[in-house]
Amino acid sequence: MRYEHIRQEAYEANMQLPRLGLVLFTFGNVSAADRSQGLFAIKPSGVPYDQLSPASMVIIDFDGKTVEGDLRPSSDTQTHAVLYKHWTAINGIVHTHSVYATAWAQAQRDIPIYGTTHADHNTVDIPCAPPMEDSMIEGDYEYQTGFQIMNCFAERKLDYREVEMILVGNHAPFTWGKTAAKAVYNSAVLETVAQMAMHTEQINPNAPRLKEALIKKHWERKHGPDAYYGQ
Amino acid sequence: MRYEHIRQEAYEANMQLPRLGLVLFTFGNVSAADRSQGLFAIKPSGVPYDQLSPASMVIIDFDGKTVEGDLRPSSDTQTHAVLYKHWTAINGIVHTHSVYATAWAQAQRDIPIYGTTHADHNTVDIPCAPPMEDSMIEGDYEYQTGFQIMNCFAERKLDYREVEMILVGNHAPFTWGKTAAKAVYNSAVLETVAQMAMHTEQINPNAPRLKEALIKKHWERKHGPDAYYGQ
Amino acid sequence: MRYEHIRQEAYEANMQLPRLGLVLFTFGNVSAADRSQGLFAIKPSGVPYDQLSPASMVIIDFDGKTVEGDLRPSSDTQTHAVLYKHWTAINGIVHTHSVYATAWAQAQRDIPIYGTTHADHNTVDIPCAPPMEDSMIEGDYEYQTGFQIMNCFAERKLDYREVEMILVGNHAPFTWGKTAAKAVYNSAVLETVAQMAMHTEQINPNAPRLKEALIKKHWERKHGPDAYYGQ
Amino acid sequence: MRYEHIRQEAYEANMQLPRLGLVLFTFGNVSAADRSQGLFAIKPSGVPYDQLSPASMVIIDFDGKTVEGDLRPSSDTQTHAVLYKHWTAINGIVHTHSVYATAWAQAQRDIPIYGTTHADHNTVDIPCAPPMEDSMIEGDYEYQTGFQIMNCFAERKLDYREVEMILVGNHAPFTWGKTAAKAVYNSAVLETVAQMAMHTEQINPNAPRLKEALIKKHWERKHGPDAYYGQ
Repeated sequence: MRYEHIRQEAYEANMQLPRLGLVLFTFGNVSAADRSQGLFAIKPSGVPYDQLSPASMVIIDFDGKTVEGDLRPSSDTQTHAVLYKHWTAINGIVHTHSVYATAWAQAQRDIPIYGTTHADHNTVDIPCAPPMEDSMIEGDYEYQTGFQIMNCFAERKLDYREVEMILVGNHAPFTWGKTAAKAVYNSAVLETVAQMAMHTEQINPNAPRLKEALIKKHWERKHGPDAYYGQ
Repeated sequence: MRYEHIRQEAYEANMQLPRLGLVLFTFGNVSAADRSQGLFAIKPSGVPYDQLSPASMVIIDFDGKTVEGDLRPSSDTQTHAVLYKHWTAINGIVHTHSVYATAWAQAQRDIPIYGTTHADHNTVDIPCAPPMEDSMIEGDYEYQTGFQIMNCFAERKLDYREVEMILVGNHAPFTWGKTAAKAVYNSAVLETVAQMAMHTEQINPNAPRLKEALIKKHWERKHGPDAYYGQ
Repeated sequence: MRYEHIRQEAYEANMQLPRLGLVLFTFGNVSAADRSQGLFAIKPSGVPYDQLSPASMVIIDFDGKTVEGDLRPSSDTQTHAVLYKHWTAINGIVHTHSVYATAWAQAQRDIPIYGTTHADHNTVDIPCAPPMEDSMIEGDYEYQTGFQIMNCFAERKLDYREVEMILVGNHAPFTWGKTAAKAVYNSAVLETVAQMAMHTEQINPNAPRLKEALIKKHWERKHGPDAYYGQ
Repeated sequence: MRYEHIRQEAYEANMQLPRLGLVLFTFGNVSAADRSQGLFAIKPSGVPYDQLSPASMVIIDFDGKTVEGDLRPSSDTQTHAVLYKHWTAINGIVHTHSVYATAWAQAQRDIPIYGTTHADHNTVDIPCAPPMEDSMIEGDYEYQTGFQIMNCFAERKLDYREVEMILVGNHAPFTWGKTAAKAVYNSAVLETVAQMAMHTEQINPNAPRLKEALIKKHWERKHGPDAYYGQ
């Protein structure tokens, strides 16, 4: 089987989504890229998770063209392609409609940084990109979704290598990472942070954002030059 | 065994309800119709899911009369019969008391279309029919429930082939589809959309409805003439 | 083994509590009575569910005295005994600290009848007894808890054969029934109704109570002389 | 294998965290101490639960120095060490980011004592220590977290042998006990009490705290000289 490595990686990462409670039916997809070949493997569209296999993954190039595969690729494939093409340090992308993260996207609010669970992964509020202009929607919608994500990062001067998640307003979350497995991990973290933030505001509508010293410390102990979190 | 096809279809669809977390005990029922025979198979009343079998399904005609079966059919059988009789394109109906959809029904509110998870399945708010008039309740209640559902669709000029779900005010949801399996799918989608919408309002009480361009795009990519969602 | 029937019944009913998600650790207990002997079997105190057996149940008389058993009976035993002694038509009692029902008890509010899920089981709001007077608490607390429950029913002119559940203010729910299995069923129904009612108010703070005609119809179809719900 | 007893105890207690739904990925850690040796065993940092074994636990002394172990210990190890050194009656400590307890920590509120589920375990509101001063954060952060916890107890005149849990503001909960298993039990109790308290306020924003007579009675029946709760 050709492209075996990314097929296997994409398959295993996709299968994590239902196990982590992040998807209902087929409402999610993961891709895994091989930069040396300029290709990625992605879940086929509308196929139930229990019928997936490495062989059913579809191979796509960074311009969004199908290279190999009998099944139609995920309808979000063009969004993945755009992000791989422009964000050259990522090798995995995940899209879900997980309940709490999607609720924040529908509420069109950034998720405020309320605690260290958030700060262990991000130093900023998790951004919510505004809904797209009608002209973008009516055109090549999924392709433009990729630009909507990149534009939001550009406007806010965020680095996609540091902040590996976003909410697309009225839609749902996207996450990414150096591997497909890391992108899935980020989706699960985002869902938990989203639920905690909603409950935090329910318990205290005036809850303050995390203080700067704690943001800095938690980020550095996990990601800084002297990181001591994890092996 | 006679009517084996619809017995099997109804049995399998009913068994999905507890797996999808949509029912407590026996609080739900699914039916599967065979239009060529003018009959449907429905769950017997009050029998636990783990004691069901294809043979225990009850066969009913579209006037609500029992054609075959030793057990009493679901108490909601007349509602199913009325809908099959008048909505001639459906072959499966589901009734549950799933928690979040039922909460919206009890709140007597339509579920606003807040995001693309909703728009992938409906272009309109999910309708909540008002509670029935006392005269309808005191008469043939379940039979009248079918008309309450159809009247709500008629008044709002909704097409049951496009919108496959409704909340009955103070009661609970009904869903339907071209197959029993599709009707079950719709019940699970409705429950998730109901939960997301509640959390959306909790996170932002002023959350706007989804913009028209997004409603149109998500519907068309899944249901339009050039649909590219699913296989 | 003596008293085998009620030991077995109490054991099986107790084991349903963790399966139904109604208890954390040992925070719940079920008893099963044999009226001909004037005895009931109850869970021992503080023993994890996975270490229970029919033989570990403790046999108690309706005055609360231990008749047989090496283990200490549930700390709520006196409440069970009082209820069996005065409410002569019940043969099973359940006490849990299930999350949503307990939240209503802590909020010291009756659960309003908002829909048919509630009406299928009760024609009235689920009563919340006020917290006990200090003198009752400082005396024989669990014994007095039984009277607090009965006093609440007497003051509101409720019949324990029709309403099989109560919240004890600041504490948690008790349910009962003609069998221990029915009492467990009632605990699960109560927990679901409690969650639905909380969400109903979150979705619509002005949600109206269920109209009388629906209360009457749903009760009669399940419990009236011409009941047609269940087999 | 040396230190087998505390390795085994720490391993088993750590494995309870995912089973009780208290952790996502590796967001939690348990330690088990042997006072006669002045050592404790703690989970290694960032290792998934399904890859843990007694042998992978790291052995640490009460000054926070690693005595045995190839893996890096949990990043929270210094907090554990400080608490073991100063609170000489505890032999187990747990740290999690469980959703509801963490939401209260992020809201920077004590959890009010609203009912008997809480009173069975604590006679006071569950304390939330304020976020640390910047100078403490910028120094030896995890070491200072231990002092932040102890300072909160000292200021409020709480006894760590009676109140076995705390929220660290903006961060998450810590619990402890005479054994690692008891500390895990306390983490699960705290999470349930946190969820119940949030829902209590949602159902009744003016819910009163539990009356003193009930606080005293529930505490005494479980912990007093004449305790009769549990075996």
